[in-house]
Amino acid sequence: MAAFVPKDTDYEARVRASFARQRVMETIGAELSRVEPGEVDIEIRFREDLTQQHGYLHAGIVAAVVDSACGYAALSLAPPGAEVLSIEFKLNLLSPAAGESFVARARVKRAGRNVTVCAGDLFALKGDSEKLVATMLATMMTVVANSS
Amino acid sequence: MAAFVPKDTDYEARVRASFARQRVMETIGAELSRVEPGEVDIEIRFREDLTQQHGYLHAGIVAAVVDSACGYAALSLAPPGAEVLSIEFKLNLLSPAAGESFVARARVKRAGRNVTVCAGDLFALKGDSEKLVATMLATMMTVVANSS
Amino acid sequence: MAAFVPKDTDYEARVRASFARQRVMETIGAELSRVEPGEVDIEIRFREDLTQQHGYLHAGIVAAVVDSACGYAALSLAPPGAEVLSIEFKLNLLSPAAGESFVARARVKRAGRNVTVCAGDLFALKGDSEKLVATMLATMMTVVANSS
Amino acid sequence: MAAFVPKDTDYEARVRASFARQRVMETIGAELSRVEPGEVDIEIRFREDLTQQHGYLHAGIVAAVVDSACGYAALSLAPPGAEVLSIEFKLNLLSPAAGESFVARARVKRAGRNVTVCAGDLFALKGDSEKLVATMLATMMTVVANSS
Repeated sequence: MAAFVPKDTDYEARVRASFARQRVMETIGAELSRVEPGEVDIEIRFREDLTQQHGYLHAGIVAAVVDSACGYAALSLAPPGAEVLSIEFKLNLLSPAAGESFVARARVKRAGRNVTVCAGDLFALKGDSEKLVATMLATMMTVVANSS
Repeated sequence: MAAFVPKDTDYEARVRASFARQRVMETIGAELSRVEPGEVDIEIRFREDLTQQHGYLHAGIVAAVVDSACGYAALSLAPPGAEVLSIEFKLNLLSPAAGESFVARARVKRAGRNVTVCAGDLFALKGDSEKLVATMLATMMTVVANSS
Repeated sequence: MAAFVPKDTDYEARVRASFARQRVMETIGAELSRVEPGEVDIEIRFREDLTQQHGYLHAGIVAAVVDSACGYAALSLAPPGAEVLSIEFKLNLLSPAAGESFVARARVKRAGRNVTVCAGDLFALKGDSEKLVATMLATMMTVVANSS
Repeated sequence: MAAFVPKDTDYEARVRASFARQRVMETIGAELSRVEPGEVDIEIRFREDLTQQHGYLHAGIVAAVVDSACGYAALSLAPPGAEVLSIEFKLNLLSPAAGESFVARARVKRAGRNVTVCAGDLFALKGDSEKLVATMLATMMTVVANSS
């Protein structure tokens, strides 16, 4: 797969500044670990106050980190000044989100002028091994702010 | 649309007990407001610590309440002793999740022995009016515990 | 749900003309039966040459008619001269697509300037009764042609 | 990614026999080109009688070949005698399906006892190059026939 060329050389600072404004990420303890052109990782530690009825991470929390990773993968390729909004996503829950920590890895599948499609996976980390627990296919819209 | 007949007369208590074990619902301040056969509502108030970068409710929080509402709509029709797990869901974000409070309304579209499909909407509440801000189509699996 | 007001008074003729250019609809024997603002029905008869391995209508054929119905529901609300493209859809297959004829019923859930979200169902028809066999949630993009 | 080990040594013959019973594949001119454990390719040539209103392959035809490829990727890993049914799929249309021929490449992301999740892409072929035109995330159910 060809490497992506960012349209904004300052893409990493832009992604990190936007992530810092996502108040919910701080609330759930998620951290932005890797920002490359078209690829973003977000990490989150297991917490009991984020669980569903069986003690695993709730699907909404899984969705939160994978969707944000997808959105920032898209933003890393957007032109300066543009914003990225989630239009929709689909999340498959493959295994219980059990573990001590998790990483969401998102990458752009196709970057268009208006619409960017991203795929993201959530892995449970255990020592040196990773287990895939969820996978997302997401559609993002790039919105260029008007300077009227 | 025909009314659903629950297989478990104690369906409401079962749904409420399971919801009470979803620790994340307490964390985000979500409440189970309505439980009918095949239909469940969950309410959530806006909180700044649940927002994305533009100050609206984050899509993951939207997903959390609509997915839980869908899951409990499915559970309300499951036989006694069965559990319901989310296999996957798709969420469309139609408008910014702006407002003071929101209600997720989920209903079963088709209840099968193994697979139940639910649709859910999130509405922003303002006085007497409601505005649709997101819509979900979700697939749930019913798992009957083995008595070995 | 409020009725939709079309932006193009000639919406029905426009939808019917576009449908007539979808060569695949003729190939599979699908017909456009109802065109209202924001709501479109497409009918198809069972044919053995459209089946999957168990003798039911193949999911791709189901997708074809429900996606087209969704797209034309969106087009019925688009301004004159605009085109509608499918960005993505999700299809749940609820029951085997068995029967002699089927109707796809699509309606707009939210019409935006750029993005329109539609829901569509496929029903198997048997005498006076209908059985829901599939349901779709679809995202459409409205593209306004440039005059330059 | 680890290689998959098929549970049925006769997996290729089983997949090819089931594909041959999908009458719609013959109708649209699709051919099963590659069958490996957990990975299946299906090819289709462009035909004008399969197009939408702009002369590209209709999304339903795209869905048909990618869904069948996903289903057969799942079937290649199923135990002897089991069947695979599509529960649902989501398809993103990334670029117009323009070209002379196309290949759908599907692979299993997670094979479970009951539920298998597959990802599939459709590429337009032009000489030695491929262009990604659509991507699918699909959920399949494995059904083991009862011998009563």
